Amino acid sequence: MTNCIIASTSTIHGSQPLEYLFEALIELYKDKGEVLFIPYARPGGISHDEYTIGVNNIFKKINKKIMSIHMFESPKEAFKNVQAIYTGGGNTFLLVDQLYRNNCIQLIKDAVASGIPYLGTSAGSNICGLTMQTTNDMPIVHPPSLQTLGIVPFNINPHYLDPDPTSTHKGETRETRIKEFHNLNSQPVVGLREGSWLRVYNNDITLEGKLSARIFEQHKAPYELESGSSLKEFN
Amino acid sequence: MTNCIIASTSTIHGSQPLEYLFEALIELYKDKGEVLFIPYARPGGISHDEYTIGVNNIFKKINKKIMSIHMFESPKEAFKNVQAIYTGGGNTFLLVDQLYRNNCIQLIKDAVASGIPYLGTSAGSNICGLTMQTTNDMPIVHPPSLQTLGIVPFNINPHYLDPDPTSTHKGETRETRIKEFHNLNSQPVVGLREGSWLRVYNNDITLEGKLSARIFEQHKAPYELESGSSLKEFN
Repeated sequence: MTNCIIASTSTIHGSQPLEYLFEALIELYKDKGEVLFIPYARPGGISHDEYTIGVNNIFKKINKKIMSIHMFESPKEAFKNVQAIYTGGGNTFLLVDQLYRNNCIQLIKDAVASGIPYLGTSAGSNICGLTMQTTNDMPIVHPPSLQTLGIVPFNINPHYLDPDPTSTHKGETRETRIKEFHNLNSQPVVGLREGSWLRVYNNDITLEGKLSARIFEQHKAPYELESGSSLKEFN
Repeated sequence: MTNCIIASTSTIHGSQPLEYLFEALIELYKDKGEVLFIPYARPGGISHDEYTIGVNNIFKKINKKIMSIHMFESPKEAFKNVQAIYTGGGNTFLLVDQLYRNNCIQLIKDAVASGIPYLGTSAGSNICGLTMQTTNDMPIVHPPSLQTLGIVPFNINPHYLDPDPTSTHKGETRETRIKEFHNLNSQPVVGLREGSWLRVYNNDITLEGKLSARIFEQHKAPYELESGSSLKEFN
């Protein structure tokens, strides 16, 4: 029993944070009053307190109370009576480093496996893949491992961006970077565009939102997967 | 005695690879017939052989012979009578991982310190900074360390891109990413735009090319440094 939303981004253009997901979150978190927040990714370098205050203000709108993991005596204590989880975005290297250093990887895995609803956005979604190796972030810290939760049997590239055919920039496109990844690694990569999310429920994984996703499999040309499709084929 | 060119990119829009640097390279490599090539970054996942053939064809135009490090019995052998070095672009994680695994870090440091001319482009420039933590690349491998050559006393962000004020994308801008870096790390970061390079000669470091560079110092607002300026102030 797994019950997760894995979203490309917390915020879409022209909308308040998480607003586009409110309906889906009300369903995900139904019957749960309190959500355990994991602020370790610290977007823009803000503090755990600042991040928690901001997220608490958003979750008030759907009548959920936020308790941040950093407010507990220990992460173990935080997970003792956990009802629901939200891991926010920011820097994926920092998030994964902190998850390892605070011994949280197994705690989250166990909670998710037991059916505790989980929401991830951006970096918080990236960690739902097999590894964080298809992050877009800078390695501002050096985590002990790049292995992540493996809630889904593939890697995720959040904030997926299509190559811009008019660009004169010579830095690698997202597609080139993922190609480099596949030269050394075999797992599929799901490029989730902003506004898309994966709904993981029991053993099914469905692409939600209005957009298609870009799928990258080793030794295959990348292709589009339409919204509403199942991603079970990778299982 | 240090003698290096640290370039943002190998290729600028509308021009052949390295072409915009030919004049500077003829000066850098003067009196040197053979250049030791380090192909470890493997752009787009191409093989060491493929990469070397391509670079050899470019260097023919300035009458230099390329010998790639992977063609020698050992990296140590390759550095024995090294005349000049070129480290090409690609994936910085892969490059740094290979440099560590092949015990090349100290070999390059010693060669550069002894006055052997060095050219780096993109990933090959990134490694001239104190650490590779301001790379734009994906962590397709997990290097044992992110510490790099420290030829210059700051970090480099190659292919620097200004934030696009018209963008609706919610992924972090380059500036936000560097801000996150400075939340945890103190060294300055030089954002090198494509077409810019640093000329390191003896103890001086000068910004070359037509463009200004974007300088990021911890606890300071980012600012522009004009072409022709010295970067010794960071020393």
